[in-house]
Amino acid sequence: MRTFEEYVERLKKMRPNVYMGGQLVDRMNPAFQPGIKTIGLTFTLPEEDEKLKEMTYVKSHLTGKTINRFTHIHQCEEDLLTKQEMTRLYCHKAGRCIQRCMGVDVMNALSVVTKDIDNVHGTEYHQRFNKYLEWYQENDIIGNCAQTDVKGDRSKRPHQQVDPDLYLRVVEKKEDGIIISGAKAHNTIAPYADEIIAVPTRAMKSEDKDWAVACAVPADAEGLYLITVAHNQRDRKHFPAPIGDTGGAHSITVYDNVFVPWERVFMCGETEFAGQLAALFATYHRHSYTGCKPAISDILMGTAALVSEYNGIGKASHVRDKLADYIAVAELVYSAGIAAGLKSRKAASGTQVPNVIYTNVGRYHAGVHIYEEYEILADLAGGLAATLPREEDFVNPITKPYLDKYIMRNPKVSSDKIQLCYRLVENLIASAPGAAAQISGIHGGGSPIMEKIAINGTYDMESKKAIAKYLAGIED
Amino acid sequence: MRTFEEYVERLKKMRPNVYMGGQLVDRMNPAFQPGIKTIGLTFTLPEEDEKLKEMTYVKSHLTGKTINRFTHIHQCEEDLLTKQEMTRLYCHKAGRCIQRCMGVDVMNALSVVTKDIDNVHGTEYHQRFNKYLEWYQENDIIGNCAQTDVKGDRSKRPHQQVDPDLYLRVVEKKEDGIIISGAKAHNTIAPYADEIIAVPTRAMKSEDKDWAVACAVPADAEGLYLITVAHNQRDRKHFPAPIGDTGGAHSITVYDNVFVPWERVFMCGETEFAGQLAALFATYHRHSYTGCKPAISDILMGTAALVSEYNGIGKASHVRDKLADYIAVAELVYSAGIAAGLKSRKAASGTQVPNVIYTNVGRYHAGVHIYEEYEILADLAGGLAATLPREEDFVNPITKPYLDKYIMRNPKVSSDKIQLCYRLVENLIASAPGAAAQISGIHGGGSPIMEKIAINGTYDMESKKAIAKYLAGIED
Amino acid sequence: MRTFEEYVERLKKMRPNVYMGGQLVDRMNPAFQPGIKTIGLTFTLPEEDEKLKEMTYVKSHLTGKTINRFTHIHQCEEDLLTKQEMTRLYCHKAGRCIQRCMGVDVMNALSVVTKDIDNVHGTEYHQRFNKYLEWYQENDIIGNCAQTDVKGDRSKRPHQQVDPDLYLRVVEKKEDGIIISGAKAHNTIAPYADEIIAVPTRAMKSEDKDWAVACAVPADAEGLYLITVAHNQRDRKHFPAPIGDTGGAHSITVYDNVFVPWERVFMCGETEFAGQLAALFATYHRHSYTGCKPAISDILMGTAALVSEYNGIGKASHVRDKLADYIAVAELVYSAGIAAGLKSRKAASGTQVPNVIYTNVGRYHAGVHIYEEYEILADLAGGLAATLPREEDFVNPITKPYLDKYIMRNPKVSSDKIQLCYRLVENLIASAPGAAAQISGIHGGGSPIMEKIAINGTYDMESKKAIAKYLAGIED
Amino acid sequence: MRTFEEYVERLKKMRPNVYMGGQLVDRMNPAFQPGIKTIGLTFTLPEEDEKLKEMTYVKSHLTGKTINRFTHIHQCEEDLLTKQEMTRLYCHKAGRCIQRCMGVDVMNALSVVTKDIDNVHGTEYHQRFNKYLEWYQENDIIGNCAQTDVKGDRSKRPHQQVDPDLYLRVVEKKEDGIIISGAKAHNTIAPYADEIIAVPTRAMKSEDKDWAVACAVPADAEGLYLITVAHNQRDRKHFPAPIGDTGGAHSITVYDNVFVPWERVFMCGETEFAGQLAALFATYHRHSYTGCKPAISDILMGTAALVSEYNGIGKASHVRDKLADYIAVAELVYSAGIAAGLKSRKAASGTQVPNVIYTNVGRYHAGVHIYEEYEILADLAGGLAATLPREEDFVNPITKPYLDKYIMRNPKVSSDKIQLCYRLVENLIASAPGAAAQISGIHGGGSPIMEKIAINGTYDMESKKAIAKYLAGIED
Repeated sequence: MRTFEEYVERLKKMRPNVYMGGQLVDRMNPAFQPGIKTIGLTFTLPEEDEKLKEMTYVKSHLTGKTINRFTHIHQCEEDLLTKQEMTRLYCHKAGRCIQRCMGVDVMNALSVVTKDIDNVHGTEYHQRFNKYLEWYQENDIIGNCAQTDVKGDRSKRPHQQVDPDLYLRVVEKKEDGIIISGAKAHNTIAPYADEIIAVPTRAMKSEDKDWAVACAVPADAEGLYLITVAHNQRDRKHFPAPIGDTGGAHSITVYDNVFVPWERVFMCGETEFAGQLAALFATYHRHSYTGCKPAISDILMGTAALVSEYNGIGKASHVRDKLADYIAVAELVYSAGIAAGLKSRKAASGTQVPNVIYTNVGRYHAGVHIYEEYEILADLAGGLAATLPREEDFVNPITKPYLDKYIMRNPKVSSDKIQLCYRLVENLIASAPGAAAQISGIHGGGSPIMEKIAINGTYDMESKKAIAKYLAGIED
Repeated sequence: MRTFEEYVERLKKMRPNVYMGGQLVDRMNPAFQPGIKTIGLTFTLPEEDEKLKEMTYVKSHLTGKTINRFTHIHQCEEDLLTKQEMTRLYCHKAGRCIQRCMGVDVMNALSVVTKDIDNVHGTEYHQRFNKYLEWYQENDIIGNCAQTDVKGDRSKRPHQQVDPDLYLRVVEKKEDGIIISGAKAHNTIAPYADEIIAVPTRAMKSEDKDWAVACAVPADAEGLYLITVAHNQRDRKHFPAPIGDTGGAHSITVYDNVFVPWERVFMCGETEFAGQLAALFATYHRHSYTGCKPAISDILMGTAALVSEYNGIGKASHVRDKLADYIAVAELVYSAGIAAGLKSRKAASGTQVPNVIYTNVGRYHAGVHIYEEYEILADLAGGLAATLPREEDFVNPITKPYLDKYIMRNPKVSSDKIQLCYRLVENLIASAPGAAAQISGIHGGGSPIMEKIAINGTYDMESKKAIAKYLAGIED
Repeated sequence: MRTFEEYVERLKKMRPNVYMGGQLVDRMNPAFQPGIKTIGLTFTLPEEDEKLKEMTYVKSHLTGKTINRFTHIHQCEEDLLTKQEMTRLYCHKAGRCIQRCMGVDVMNALSVVTKDIDNVHGTEYHQRFNKYLEWYQENDIIGNCAQTDVKGDRSKRPHQQVDPDLYLRVVEKKEDGIIISGAKAHNTIAPYADEIIAVPTRAMKSEDKDWAVACAVPADAEGLYLITVAHNQRDRKHFPAPIGDTGGAHSITVYDNVFVPWERVFMCGETEFAGQLAALFATYHRHSYTGCKPAISDILMGTAALVSEYNGIGKASHVRDKLADYIAVAELVYSAGIAAGLKSRKAASGTQVPNVIYTNVGRYHAGVHIYEEYEILADLAGGLAATLPREEDFVNPITKPYLDKYIMRNPKVSSDKIQLCYRLVENLIASAPGAAAQISGIHGGGSPIMEKIAINGTYDMESKKAIAKYLAGIED
Repeated sequence: MRTFEEYVERLKKMRPNVYMGGQLVDRMNPAFQPGIKTIGLTFTLPEEDEKLKEMTYVKSHLTGKTINRFTHIHQCEEDLLTKQEMTRLYCHKAGRCIQRCMGVDVMNALSVVTKDIDNVHGTEYHQRFNKYLEWYQENDIIGNCAQTDVKGDRSKRPHQQVDPDLYLRVVEKKEDGIIISGAKAHNTIAPYADEIIAVPTRAMKSEDKDWAVACAVPADAEGLYLITVAHNQRDRKHFPAPIGDTGGAHSITVYDNVFVPWERVFMCGETEFAGQLAALFATYHRHSYTGCKPAISDILMGTAALVSEYNGIGKASHVRDKLADYIAVAELVYSAGIAAGLKSRKAASGTQVPNVIYTNVGRYHAGVHIYEEYEILADLAGGLAATLPREEDFVNPITKPYLDKYIMRNPKVSSDKIQLCYRLVENLIASAPGAAAQISGIHGGGSPIMEKIAINGTYDMESKKAIAKYLAGIED
């Protein structure tokens, strides 16, 4: 396994193909440091925390070697349950999304679908994938999953678009590989990932053959352009805190005639499996949300409890009532993930797949409550979340005594603690990344409407109608 | 195990002590038939349905004999998971609450607490309880749990009430047993139960010693008065249907100096265990709700899906959207029950106890959505739910042709089917028992506010505040 | 104006054409007495209450004579505001829907549309209508509005239905009038109304000419069949109360070749006005809801406040919080009605028409909160709402002392008061009419989805997009 | 009246007492320009827009001269209705809170209370106030209302605090004026206001005499320190737009022994009026919210409608459904303001006071829906709101062609328009000021809990209980 330093060293050596704010920027640009530090926790925390070590280090089913669970293919219920719990714990430390789950989620989805395709078509995708997987595990790779095509006219299918590149497609098949063009949107972590792994974003029909493609490329591949944006907090110079260190960045990833050798191509034209692969990555990723979203709830509820305590209203009935609302959201979502793990199934490849219904009701519940969870913290913290002066004013000798004097509440809690607490609140709910987190809280891993579609598409409603008919005395 | 007929025969032989509508009535009164038939399903269905047979029949850990799971003490996670699933399936057939869960729930709670008391006080409650349990299992008993005291002034504790009987209490201790007086409210199934098993309704302090009592008495014990009420639907003469056969009845159970022999007394003055017993019954009963409430959702959603299909709007997006809402409620509640089973613990007695947090967030979620679930069906069914003529008008030769003609929607669905479907809707949402079911959907097993209290009382909020402090950079 | 007795006398003389429970029944059938008494309040209350007298008695704009406002055509903003307030006050006394609003609402809609048709077609509907109106006002008529056709296949328009009668239609035009056939559903008050006034239920196109019909017939017209149903509470013999006296009944009204003389025909084939008339009745009726629904909220909140006080929790923070929720719903809906009155417009006929948007957002808000309002009362009242023994048990000398003893809470509130209070709660939320009231609370005057359609159809969204474009710097 | 230029000139001349980011900064600091430009609209728009001119220019009741309505004392219902509508229109142009309402709101509150105090105490506050008002109107002043004290321990009253300055207080009374110390929080517009007008934040008792103070000081008064913070968007260099020009800033305003001459003191020790003044400013300010909050809804709904149209889903049923939700919120809140205007009362001073209940239910409804409104836009806009590259990347010749190509949806809508539309979305919901706007949407003018307290405190719940008793047959 790698160290954090080795991960950073590799980033430094990559070909510059990252753009931001009108410029070609270095991967070591300060805007990406919070993201890099967040990913870094997956390397460093197992060495610091015994429980996380136990959860993170796991034996590869391929090689028997010890690997990081963020590169592991789930083999049993327990694996899914552990991944869920581990995700929650990492997010506690990051103060937000740990970001590395998307790599393990796409790898698991590919492990299943490559096998299924082979079983139908006699292809060799699964063997190819396993070879890639071995390298991926061995090198402790950070993988970005590039799923969402830019999609152009939403009412048209890939082959119907005015511009064929609006979905990623195979432009040419060559002896040694394929040439692909198009763009994938909302690629969080892309600017500090090792690999970009593309999968389809939707079900396809036979006319969409050229668009049914899944493959992996290095993040600095020739022809690949990462046009990025980061929403970062103000730097913490005077009052450092873990919440100030982490963050993320997003990329629109443009493939301009990128060459991919066959050994990195995992689907190429098997349109009937495009929908399955899209759905399977979504299922794995939504199952990860049943771990990370409770962590976000934990952070928001802990902050809400703390700020209420500092304000002297920690035992007020409306505060306790709202804290219980947080608990209910967090633990229902977590329950759904547990149920999805317990009621999981084994795919032909041997990979364990979470139950689709429980996974989706869990992610759905998280998505429709995210704004409410922010609202509760805003409600309990009060206006100071939005009007807290900057940390420099707490240092300036003219304003410091005034701020220290007037920020006081309970005389037993120092002004520094109150400031730090409200700084955390500001970071969480009154900052650009806080605002962006609400949005990704809805849309990440699929919007609520996508989960409803997944639920409606797979639920056995006929059996429920049969119950109604039985009770009504209706015979068909 | 008993047959349905044996159960009924035993009821017939009981001393008349049931009052309703100003009269002393027979236990065979037509108003109780729906309740008796509902309980009857727990005797008859295992003989008709292989899956239910497998779930219902279980080996007693005491005697090794085959017993009905509704009398079983849970020994492992699997037992809890099976009870949950079994409850869901029985409720599908009853079209409502199967009612027998309260007996098994109180027995499990007693199995735990009698042991815990013995361990502290050196008493012999557990042995006594096991003897009672053996008889209970052997005779396949229907037990009513009498928990809720009438409580008088809600702001006062038992010993502070103007009238000491406002909580059930020990009036006298004798050599062979105790004399108790008081009343327990909301005792569903009492008029057709074999046994009434009383447990405390709240935590108590040392001054409340006389009120800390748990014991079992036959439902026709001397001095016991059942003052009952039933909300029943109109009889179904012309168009019978299973939903028309089942129902329930409730009792205010008055204990007027009832004698209880020591072998049926399971707590007597150990005030420090009163709260634990109250909470433990609630936990088991709420865990049962994670099985029955999804069943109610199943029935409502199946009916909503059916009536929408009959009305030709089954595929409309707002219909599918609302059906997904049902699924989300049902499966989140069910997930919570699964998680509570998986994360359960073993008590000193060997009894398996569901996780308190998951149990309560599940029951809470069910309780706060019950009215919404009725609302969705009302919304999708439309006004005919409330204005459907009575079945006799569908038979009267003058009105029948008009009703048959004008109730038609899709020509492929007969007018009879539409009438039956809407009759089911009427029974579910436009009838007195339907209205009462909404109320018990909130309050049964404890009101939402009680679950929030249970959640707040047991959740580890300190660890969440510690996360917030860590992220904020606050050191204590 | 009539007296209550004259109204009843007229009902007694009508031709028997009312069916219920498989039989041809008398209009004096006990099942209709609650409805008759409810309507009766509009005759008797003005004589008992000065404020209601002032609001109810108004000068006819046609004849200058004093009439009941429930027969008045609104001439100014003040008329609309008074109707709204008056409706709220009458419902307080009825304990539910006062039911007579539908008559005045359809008359106002007809006053507008008959004029508009005449202006386009040179017909004489408005003059005809005014003559009918004069008689209607002079005789203080109770009018039922029959709007909702049974509609058959909801995806088909009237002329596309398999059976042409699934929407009410003109079968034949004769020199002296028309023959109509079809059926109208959900006709509350029909069994105790003087007149049935039919209007279209939807917009129509030229092929639907035969179905574009509006006309009035006596409730006992030849060929008219009222197939009725009533959801009534148990009789109150021992503890009478106003809530026990009122109620309602509904009819599916079948027109089997009913003759209507021309002077009672107000639209016949002018398809382009069908939608307008349908919408206009809906607007007036929804505006009435901005008066009656706050009254329902008042009743529920008053009951919730009373039962909480009796239970000794009247000042608990969660109780006050929920009472404020009631207030917010009631007064927002009422505000919307006020705004609709203030921003009303004058039609060509001189009739004042409430603002469509404010009316619809008000009715919509009421509709989507009705279940929640019932839920709050159920929540605060507790399970006794569903398990209260029948009043006879409070009289039976054996059970009475027990019930009186055990229903006590605060020693200063007598057991009779507590019983009466809970009997009211039972009537409101744990009875068949209570359940049906929830459903009509959603669907009466149009379901929430219909109000959203009305809102979307009339709101000026283009101006809002223009604001967005301006702020974004987008020029078209 | 002033011009925008005169307003700016006056700001330039003020004594530097504004701190930000650790430094003493100029009032012309770029961080304040968005706020200054927002306020500027109240000077410039009447000259550009006929409708706004008509609404804004009004005759002073004091002097008969034409003044800006933002300095006017409301004399009649119409004044309140016009202020409400005008506020909505100004906010449309600002793309956010117009900010100047707080000045007119506090002036109206003072006009009422100064008179009421005089009537009781024979003081001369009202005359003094009118003199100040005349100057204020004549000079077209921008007034900041400083209400919220920092409050220290929330469970203690002013005189009980450890530090007496935690509520603003009179340190010394002198012949020519008073000396005050303390601090007021959340003072939006303070850094670009002419005047700071302090009023109490709560009801007080006799021991709190020194804290019952209301007075006006210039924003650059000796001893006054403005410690400020601004949440601004990134500068718009390449694609300017009105939304990029406006904004705001907040101040914690510290009074360190500030001298206030008697002619600017409007309350000094009359504790029994402190609560009334606090509540009255809140009422006026919440009534302003019934104008501005619908404007925020208009902006969000217009943007949601536009982005949906650009994405080709403008007519999808779920989109129309959500747009109707916006309309319902906006128009219900607006209705409440209309009702509050129509049901307003005249104070002893002649000032028109909005109805408290309607005002509060309106503001409450706005406050509890603000997060939901942001959520809908986030839901409909999708993830690009959070991942849109910066405008420089749309100019850089390497990335521009890619972004233009891949941002395309409907070929009829140019990539520039799509970018501008999403930039607006980003500004509204994925930026620091967007996040802060959610928080002020809850807390501005008082948090939802404060409105509930105001509602509960003034609603006539006894009359509702009387309705319940009447219906139940309960006689007192």
